[in-house]
Amino acid sequence: METKIVFDTIWVLFTAMLVFFMNLGFAMVEAGFARAKNCVNILSKNFIVFAISSLGFLLLGWGLMFGDGNIFFGTNGLFFLTGPDNSPATGDAYKGVYSALNWTGVPLLAKFFFQLVFCGTAATIVSGAVAERIKYGSFIIFSFVMSIFIYPIVGHWIWGGGWLAKLGMFDFAGSTVVHSVGGWAALAGILVLGPRFGKYTDDGKIHPIPGHNLSIATIGVFVLWLGWFGFNPGSTMAADPAAISHVVMTTNTSAIAAILSSTIISWIVLGKPDLGMTLNGCLAGLVAITAPCAFVSVGSAIIIGAIAGVLVVLSVIFFDRIKIDDPVGALSVHLVNGIFGTISVGLFAQDKIAGTQTGNGLFFGGGFSLLGAQITGVVSSGLFVFFLSLVVWLVIKAVFGIRVTLHEEIEGLDIGEHGNNAYPEFLIHRPVYSYIGKARSAANEN
Amino acid sequence: METKIVFDTIWVLFTAMLVFFMNLGFAMVEAGFARAKNCVNILSKNFIVFAISSLGFLLLGWGLMFGDGNIFFGTNGLFFLTGPDNSPATGDAYKGVYSALNWTGVPLLAKFFFQLVFCGTAATIVSGAVAERIKYGSFIIFSFVMSIFIYPIVGHWIWGGGWLAKLGMFDFAGSTVVHSVGGWAALAGILVLGPRFGKYTDDGKIHPIPGHNLSIATIGVFVLWLGWFGFNPGSTMAADPAAISHVVMTTNTSAIAAILSSTIISWIVLGKPDLGMTLNGCLAGLVAITAPCAFVSVGSAIIIGAIAGVLVVLSVIFFDRIKIDDPVGALSVHLVNGIFGTISVGLFAQDKIAGTQTGNGLFFGGGFSLLGAQITGVVSSGLFVFFLSLVVWLVIKAVFGIRVTLHEEIEGLDIGEHGNNAYPEFLIHRPVYSYIGKARSAANEN
Amino acid sequence: METKIVFDTIWVLFTAMLVFFMNLGFAMVEAGFARAKNCVNILSKNFIVFAISSLGFLLLGWGLMFGDGNIFFGTNGLFFLTGPDNSPATGDAYKGVYSALNWTGVPLLAKFFFQLVFCGTAATIVSGAVAERIKYGSFIIFSFVMSIFIYPIVGHWIWGGGWLAKLGMFDFAGSTVVHSVGGWAALAGILVLGPRFGKYTDDGKIHPIPGHNLSIATIGVFVLWLGWFGFNPGSTMAADPAAISHVVMTTNTSAIAAILSSTIISWIVLGKPDLGMTLNGCLAGLVAITAPCAFVSVGSAIIIGAIAGVLVVLSVIFFDRIKIDDPVGALSVHLVNGIFGTISVGLFAQDKIAGTQTGNGLFFGGGFSLLGAQITGVVSSGLFVFFLSLVVWLVIKAVFGIRVTLHEEIEGLDIGEHGNNAYPEFLIHRPVYSYIGKARSAANEN
Repeated sequence: METKIVFDTIWVLFTAMLVFFMNLGFAMVEAGFARAKNCVNILSKNFIVFAISSLGFLLLGWGLMFGDGNIFFGTNGLFFLTGPDNSPATGDAYKGVYSALNWTGVPLLAKFFFQLVFCGTAATIVSGAVAERIKYGSFIIFSFVMSIFIYPIVGHWIWGGGWLAKLGMFDFAGSTVVHSVGGWAALAGILVLGPRFGKYTDDGKIHPIPGHNLSIATIGVFVLWLGWFGFNPGSTMAADPAAISHVVMTTNTSAIAAILSSTIISWIVLGKPDLGMTLNGCLAGLVAITAPCAFVSVGSAIIIGAIAGVLVVLSVIFFDRIKIDDPVGALSVHLVNGIFGTISVGLFAQDKIAGTQTGNGLFFGGGFSLLGAQITGVVSSGLFVFFLSLVVWLVIKAVFGIRVTLHEEIEGLDIGEHGNNAYPEFLIHRPVYSYIGKARSAANEN
Repeated sequence: METKIVFDTIWVLFTAMLVFFMNLGFAMVEAGFARAKNCVNILSKNFIVFAISSLGFLLLGWGLMFGDGNIFFGTNGLFFLTGPDNSPATGDAYKGVYSALNWTGVPLLAKFFFQLVFCGTAATIVSGAVAERIKYGSFIIFSFVMSIFIYPIVGHWIWGGGWLAKLGMFDFAGSTVVHSVGGWAALAGILVLGPRFGKYTDDGKIHPIPGHNLSIATIGVFVLWLGWFGFNPGSTMAADPAAISHVVMTTNTSAIAAILSSTIISWIVLGKPDLGMTLNGCLAGLVAITAPCAFVSVGSAIIIGAIAGVLVVLSVIFFDRIKIDDPVGALSVHLVNGIFGTISVGLFAQDKIAGTQTGNGLFFGGGFSLLGAQITGVVSSGLFVFFLSLVVWLVIKAVFGIRVTLHEEIEGLDIGEHGNNAYPEFLIHRPVYSYIGKARSAANEN
Repeated sequence: METKIVFDTIWVLFTAMLVFFMNLGFAMVEAGFARAKNCVNILSKNFIVFAISSLGFLLLGWGLMFGDGNIFFGTNGLFFLTGPDNSPATGDAYKGVYSALNWTGVPLLAKFFFQLVFCGTAATIVSGAVAERIKYGSFIIFSFVMSIFIYPIVGHWIWGGGWLAKLGMFDFAGSTVVHSVGGWAALAGILVLGPRFGKYTDDGKIHPIPGHNLSIATIGVFVLWLGWFGFNPGSTMAADPAAISHVVMTTNTSAIAAILSSTIISWIVLGKPDLGMTLNGCLAGLVAITAPCAFVSVGSAIIIGAIAGVLVVLSVIFFDRIKIDDPVGALSVHLVNGIFGTISVGLFAQDKIAGTQTGNGLFFGGGFSLLGAQITGVVSSGLFVFFLSLVVWLVIKAVFGIRVTLHEEIEGLDIGEHGNNAYPEFLIHRPVYSYIGKARSAANEN
């Protein structure tokens, strides 16, 4: 018993550190996929978003998510982890107000830190989608609301003993709780912000805006992949050898299948194997396997990953067509594949394959009951997060303003928001748009 | 017993994740040492090579390497890990078809994942050597053959209970199995491909082609070094405190000795302490200690590392002289020092220094028997891999073509193969060769 | 007992690897904050400093620091770890000459490797402060002296059972032992070297010299933050679940508080939220919590971090005003906050909050006794390190010279010291100073 606490704590803290490291991954993916003139802003956002969401989650978010309460949110031990708690005691021996996590026998602060880094991830997903035009201060405010309120409420429904958990919905490591929640909040933000200047012109054309540094974007994706070996296998919150080995393998297998399928599909659709698609394909495979990683076989992980890789490529093209301007593909990766991954549990789950009693999914003879619960979870969390986020974004827009001036957007947010320049010595070439004259006059009028 | 399975699994998965992370290291070293115009291609290759080799190893490679069979390759449980196996049972209690690994008491999927990331490393070594002129598709095909067939066969000989294991050859973490195997395959590829355009001119001159970004190359080396703390100490596949502490120290000590010796020797030979030599020196020290890390003392690790650092510098100069064009120094690092490291076991081994019964090496009174086995392993695996790879490369050349057009090579593979540009906003200066006119006309004729 | 050795060793080696990885973090922070023309030199320094300090610590430093001896330095088992030692035996069962570490039950080589990476960190801190003008060879010599002599002596006082330990001074993970020691040595170096050319001009103006690459500086800070999860929680040198969970949380909480306070204060003082300040703010929060992480509450960690974030901003401005030219802010981060963190133990400590019997600090009713011991430690170690370093720097200056020629400084140390160029293909723009003519003639005369 004593020994079990030790190695479970080592496992939880080790994997939490890997998830923490995903902050670097997100920072590099977003910075690499954006333009050099907005690089400092993106790097700054990735620092501050983890800081502010850590504060929000400590202040109240944790309590709303894991505090005992009703089926919608926690009502006990709300602020600063101050409720009674005798962790690492588990099961019936546990006395405290955070009983939704009484199955994991590690100290309270280890539970908290593990959940904290997940909250930070959800908030970070928004960052990339709203990049290159959002005001720094307004982004910080949204991140705070996200971590203190939006993320924890849905989290309570699914991981905190709330109504979706009781309904039998399963989301092992957060395809919905983290990824699609982040994605819905990002979609609302994009709709309120509008596209970047020059992305869609009056003549109906779509102008690609390539990222400024694919080397650091690649660093980002590899670091995120490493982080996912914390994200998914760590969500056991216990060092169960069979379970963690299984989850490591489903996670890796989905990623490699998605790399292959996204590369092939981009080769077919775009004519060449596009590195951006390979990178986002890898992330898509990781997002999709996040919910089902402990509930499906390695063989199913190949199929889930392969589908995710195709979905992300088609989705990037689709969002561009309908003029949803998402600079880094965050919606295609986190929203679309967060939804797909959650639903895939209802299709591919095999009861107790790594210990959890999920029942079987549709393709393994379990009928529609699990699939129904998964879809209910996807729809309800989506509606809640999207509309609540929309309100929050609109309030921020009304009170503080949400978008930088056109002048600042054209000049770059690094100077306007931060007074910094990411690469002051490198000569930067800015593509000369045919509509540059118009842009300049518009900027001057602004 | 139960507890031992838990911490051994934690150790194996943790170290496997570090080895996985070496993918980032290789990507950055190779990209940094190559030119900006080929950066996307190199990054893409590093993603796809891990994906394709994961698939190949899952499909068949694992079975050929660790399946029970004859002394040359496995014949049981060949495809998709489907053989019977009651891991984590060990020793006599083990019932299954992967008995070469029955000494490690972790779940089958943990064993597989650990071996998978090693296979990925061997395949990746080739990537740097053939950089800046190979067709993307042709490289993918070779990587698949490497992971499904070439690497597993030699692996079976040494780690899968094959004839070299029975002969008493020792290669603790793969100076031969991974590094020199990767190096021989790379050498065959270089010979079939020929040097990069402009590297060696008709006037007999050798033109240095400096890497475009030493910051990311440095990131790569540090990440690889970290990864080696998974590679070597993880190869215990058990959390034996004395053994893993010993291996961590021999690994680190060899690396730092090689950093110092390569820096000093480059200072003497080249006149200044060249960073590229320091970086490759570090990697050389790590490759050399990979075979002997558990069999030699920390003091011997200093000597092995110091020799490795000298070898790599002289070797880089040597390969350039004989017009073997290896853009990143992969042969000098992985082939030359993989060979040296394997042989050093026969020289410096001390029986049971970290538990393994190797007998003593030549310098510790063990005579030539261990050294003979090591040399047999080096020669036989080298002959097998080199000639088999040569055939594979030649077939690929004949069927698909192996080299991009001269026009594409001069323009850069990023545009030609991927339609991407790693740094679209940065102004890039391309060195003006005196023979540029000739190059252009050649390219146009192509 | 046997089991405890296993998981303690896993924990110590795992956290040591994270601390090792801080070498990458320092390399990127320093390189990113410096100019492109000195990038190779900085990267080289970060490699060689770890190599040379590993050698120095192995050769003699470890023995001086942890060997049994008098209250000033070790006198037993001095060279190459050769003293008798029956680790992992602990307490009374321990028989050997390194009894200051007999409380941790891991193999000797695990203890050594953990301490080695700390020594490397102390030496590396100097690197950033003296960047962009120091001779490569002279820096190497100082690093060797630092690791073999200066760092180990102070380390013996505090961690090796010396007089400050006996006095009741507490420095859990090294705000003083590592960070302020590194900072004092750096300050001495800066004073001997003088400011970079062009930083302070005769007209009394201070010229900001912005870093060349904030993307890699950001990589550096995130990597360092990850490394700190080894630095602080690993300093338990045992996998005690409650203690390591506590330390992870105080560490993270201080960092996020410092990010927020440094961003806010730079927003107020400089008008905009400066990324450089956010980055150094994060590091400042981590340095400050290093001494008290196991002795204070999570709530106190917020306050300590928030103060650290303010201190670093004001301190950067202050050092610039008094013309102490520290290119990367190493003094503000490591010296100022190393001192503050050490003193904060005397203010915020709560007896046995994570198991250690420290007594209470001033703010928790403990009076001035703990605070007095902390201040004694800060002052005595500061005086010793500063003056000893000053002597060493002056001797190096007299014997080998310490500063590159003005010509080389203007041209960049990469060419002069290494014959390399970090970014040979990128077009670099160098700011044209109004005094450039003067500079050129001065350089030519040099």
